[in-house]
Formats: sequence, C-alpha cells, structure tokens
Amino acid sequence: MRTALVIGTGLMGTSAALALSSRGVDVHLADHDESAALTAAALGAGSAEAPEGPVDLVVVAVPPAHVAATLADAVARGLGRGYLDVASVKGGPRRELLALGCDLSRYIGTHPMAGRERSGPLAATATLFEGRPWVLTPTPDTDTEVLNLALELVALCQGVPVVMDADAHDRAVALVSHTPQLVSSMVAARLENAEEAAVRLCGQGIRDVTRIAGSDPAMWLDILAANPGPVADVLADLADDLTGVVTALRALQSADDAKRHDGAAGVEDILRRGNAGRARVPGKHGTAPQAYELVDVLIGDQPGELARLFADAGAAGINIEDVRIEHSAGQQAGLVKLAVEPRSAPVLTASLRERGWALRR
Amino acid sequence: MRTALVIGTGLMGTSAALALSSRGVDVHLADHDESAALTAAALGAGSAEAPEGPVDLVVVAVPPAHVAATLADAVARGLGRGYLDVASVKGGPRRELLALGCDLSRYIGTHPMAGRERSGPLAATATLFEGRPWVLTPTPDTDTEVLNLALELVALCQGVPVVMDADAHDRAVALVSHTPQLVSSMVAARLENAEEAAVRLCGQGIRDVTRIAGSDPAMWLDILAANPGPVADVLADLADDLTGVVTALRALQSADDAKRHDGAAGVEDILRRGNAGRARVPGKHGTAPQAYELVDVLIGDQPGELARLFADAGAAGINIEDVRIEHSAGQQAGLVKLAVEPRSAPVLTASLRERGWALRR
Repeated sequence: MRTALVIGTGLMGTSAALALSSRGVDVHLADHDESAALTAAALGAGSAEAPEGPVDLVVVAVPPAHVAATLADAVARGLGRGYLDVASVKGGPRRELLALGCDLSRYIGTHPMAGRERSGPLAATATLFEGRPWVLTPTPDTDTEVLNLALELVALCQGVPVVMDADAHDRAVALVSHTPQLVSSMVAARLENAEEAAVRLCGQGIRDVTRIAGSDPAMWLDILAANPGPVADVLADLADDLTGVVTALRALQSADDAKRHDGAAGVEDILRRGNAGRARVPGKHGTAPQAYELVDVLIGDQPGELARLFADAGAAGINIEDVRIEHSAGQQAGLVKLAVEPRSAPVLTASLRERGWALRR
Repeated sequence: MRTALVIGTGLMGTSAALALSSRGVDVHLADHDESAALTAAALGAGSAEAPEGPVDLVVVAVPPAHVAATLADAVARGLGRGYLDVASVKGGPRRELLALGCDLSRYIGTHPMAGRERSGPLAATATLFEGRPWVLTPTPDTDTEVLNLALELVALCQGVPVVMDADAHDRAVALVSHTPQLVSSMVAARLENAEEAAVRLCGQGIRDVTRIAGSDPAMWLDILAANPGPVADVLADLADDLTGVVTALRALQSADDAKRHDGAAGVEDILRRGNAGRARVPGKHGTAPQAYELVDVLIGDQPGELARLFADAGAAGINIEDVRIEHSAGQQAGLVKLAVEPRSAPVLTASLRERGWALRR
C-alpha cells in the first residue's frame, strides 16, 4: 500500500492515518468539517489536499449512520482500488450499501476494537490499535486484493486481525460491549436518587460494575442506534434471568420450606452460571484468565509511596501482572493488590516484608 | 474494654480477634467447629478456653442464618456486659431476636464493610477492617455503655463507624453490594454459551463489569438469603428500566421517525441517568470522585517494566492516585493508565518522556 485516503478525521480515522503516515504511506485526509481535516494534517496524519488519482485504499471513518452514503459516493467517484469502513456495526451498513445498488466486491467492512474516553483528531494516536483485535468481515464476493489491503492496514496499525461474519460481529459486540455498557448505566442509575448514607457504603464491587457508566451518552447513543436489534435480543434474555432471580428472591421470603428451597436453587443457579461465564473472559494476551496470586500491601497516603513500593518490588525481580488500588469511604490509606505468578508470590512477600512494608496475610 | 468473647472464628471473627489481641484485649474464642477455634488461637487471636466469668463484649461472627439463635443463647447464659454481631444484614436478625423474647438493650447490630476473596480463620488478618466503614445500628433501647463498647471495638480494629437504622442498612447494601453482585453474575452468565469468536472480543469494559461474577456462590447465597426482600425490590426497579430500554431499542428499529425519536430519547435517558449515578460513587477518602488526569504509558512484557515505570514516576516526585493496567486479546504489551492530580500530569509526562517511555498522547 502506497497511497490512502481517510474520510472522517475523528479519533479513529486520524489514529489510522497517523499509523499509516508514520510507516511511509502517502495519506490524504478529508472530513465534512474541513477544520478537522486540517487539524489532523497539522498533527502529521497526512495531507488535507485531495489525491490526484485513485488511491490504493479508501478508509471511511465516519459515524455509523453516515457510513453507507459516504462509501457509495466514494465508490461512484472511483476514489480507490479498495474501500473499507471502521464503524462499530457491520450488518446495517452492508444492507444499506446493497439497497443503494453499490458494487460491494471492492469493499470490506471492518471494526477495530479500540477507543478511548476522548474523541476527535486531538485525541488520536498512532498506537491506538496496537495489540487490539481488528475484526474483518469479508464475504465470498470480496475481492482478494481488497482483503489483502485490509490485512495490510491492520498490520501497519499493529492490530490483531479477526475474521467474522458481519451479523455475527454485530451479535458479538451486542453481547460483550453494548450490553455491559447499558447494564452498567442501569446499575449506576439506581444511585442517582439514593440516600447519601447508602452511597457512602459503596465498595470496590459497585465501583467496578459502574466504571463505564461514566461514558459519553452521545457517542453511545450513536453506537446503540446502529445495533438496536442484537442489543435488544441480549437484553431480553437478561430480562428473563432477572425476572427469574426476582421470583427466586421472593420465594426465599416464603414460610414454605419447599418454596424457600426452590428460591435458593434459583439464586445459586445464576451465581454458578456467572462463575462459568466469567471464567471464559480472556485475560492477558487473549489466553484463558491465568490464576495469579495477589499480594496485598497497605500503603500510606504520602506522595511517592506507590513509587517506593514498585521500586522495592522491582528490586525483587518480580514481573507484576496487574495492580489494583482499593480505597473506600473515609479511608486514610490505600490497599494495593499486586497480582503475580503464584511462584513469585512468596519471593515478593518476603522481599517487601524485609523492606518494612505492611502486608496483609 | 479488657475482655472479649468471639463466637464464630471464620474470616471476620478471627480478624477482629487478632486486632483486639494485638491491642492487649484478653480475647476468648469459640466456634461450633472446635478445630476452627483452635486454629484461630494458634494464629495468636486469643485463647480457645471458655472465659471464667462474663466478658466486656461478646462478638457474634456466625453466618446470618445462625445469628439470632447464637445471640439469644449467649444473652440467656449471661456471657457478657454487651453483645454485638457482624452479619451482613441487620433487620432480620433483630426481628428474630424480638420473636425469641430476647432483651435487646445490651445488644447492637453491626456490619463491617470488609471482606476478601478467601474465607476461614487462615484468611484472617488484624488489618481487615482498617479504614473500612463499619455500620452500627443502635436503637433508642440500646444501652449507651453497649454503644460505646461497639465504638471501642471499631476503633481498636481501625474501622470508620457509620450509624444507620437496621432496615435502612439492609436497603443500602441491597443497592450498593447485593444488586451489583447479581447483575455482574447475570451479565457473565450470558457468556457461558457464547461463541468463542464473540468471547475473543471482550475488552476492559466487560472485564470490569463481570469481575465480581467470579465470587463464591455459597457465600453469596447465604448473604442474599438473609436479605431477599430489599434485593428483590431493587432488582424489580432495575427490571422496569431494562424493559424500558428494550422497548426503546425496538423503537429505534422502526421505520417511523417519531418512534425512532422516542427510542433514541429512551436510550439516552438511561445513559444520562447512569452518568449522574456514577458521579455519586465515592472515590478516595470518601469524598466526591476527584477529577484525576490519566497519563497513558505503553509498557513491554518483560519482568520489571512496571517497577521501572513506577521508579521513574517516583523520581518525578508525583503521587500516583490510581493505576489501571489494560490488556486485551492477542496483545503482547500492556497499557498502563496512571491517574494523577491534573497539575501533576504535565510534570509526569515530561519526566517519563525524558526517560524514554512511550506515552499515548
């Protein structure tokens, strides 16, 4: 790939353009808001001038609702040898393109699983896609050259290509991304009018469950509006489980032993199924979640405590796999949980104790 | 407080006994499983011998279902000057004690908001309650001496006392602890039979939402069985929101503009209410969540990378408020998000760049 045209210079488009430009591709930038294209150009993502002839690859990075029209226009004008989009849903745009009578042989729908809290070209970075899954949805009609151009783009952005059917992709993101977002929002929404004393009792569990409830509503409305069917299907299944759990909890209040027994079985069932589902969530490097051992260290609230802890852990030669800092209401100090491989835990524990750290057994 | 009797030497009882013993209180230990009491004694939590006369405070730390009977028996035998329990629910045990005709003037129900993944005396630690909210539920009938004994216990365990009504406490934990647990389990349960390709797309969002779905089902069944009414009430409210969101998503699929508009409004409403609720979740030190700035650093996967990063951050004299490490499927390196006070971010960024770290803009 020597030339590319990126249409839509928000977070995703500008990040891809930065990655391509840094690897020597001649990138042209376009956006319906010309100042966004000029900003991206100023960041080094490419040129805001139109290309002189057809480019190797046209990358459409506009909001889901505008993907089909933008692509159909680009194809009609013959702007490139291959075309792809990076929208978060894939089935709808494909059906819209077919309805527009667009030739789809030189198009492939893709979705890089990357993002960040901020949006716009100024939030872009060439490393946005590094190590992230990048879904490609070729069909039997997709030209092999176009598939290879898409694979080259993913490689230049250092993403990890994953091939899926477009509708299977939409069902998958409904399950692993869109549903968790809405559920997190719904749990957090229960706190909106809660008593202050109740809110004070929030611990690490609810803090984790509601973290993504802080996301941008406008951006999520765009994403959900483009994938309403699959998300509604997952939520309807979830609603069945929820009704079952409410019934089970009500049965636990019964004076009747048999009903209480059924209630307990119902509650235990969802907890066990939750265990089974959680065990499938991939951990580091896409492998099954590894059993790390946690070393719990109490730290004070002075600057540099955490730095000193990590320096001391580093001196022990241990690779720390994950870190979690727990604070709770009214607490004057923090609890740091260091996740390490089981064989490293005793070494780290002994070393930190020796250096005077307060460890939880 | 000079003497105490801890009945039930699991995680909570043994941890409290360890804290009291370490501060010079003469602690006696009892458990229906004598080996658990002997284990706790061997850990230095106190003596497994029965006290010779009434102790100052009897701490009942048995599972919720056994609290009332254990307390009524202890009061009938006159084992102490004051009595308290540490069970995760407070309304039910109080009503059971009243039904048993027990004199409640020398009893106070309490609930320390602390715990850990493991259970039993071997998981216990004197620091379990440090900085954690410890709910006390006195009534107008509670003897002041007993309230003061409870406050002394909380102080000796370095907890933070919070006074609440027993039923308000049960509604609060239903909202901030029991409901998030069940919802996390329900979202994770959807993954149990999901396609492998879908599970590969899991990112940090669903990872956070389902973290507590890995909890012990038996322990959670005990907790939920003791508080079924308030939990069912919160879940029923959540079910109403869920039904509303499904309806809104279905409306977004309509060909009718007005219906689509209503659907969008419904989806946006829950996202915005989620923002409002999330903003109330307390951050560090129980204050309103502070706006930290995130500095994103890409690290390699070699041992000591994190240690080196923290040593370098420490050299810049910055207090790191929180850390999150993100890995995603197929990724060979990690993204570390360092949360710092806004004024510290530029200093940290410059200092890390100078030391050769790859920072995300």
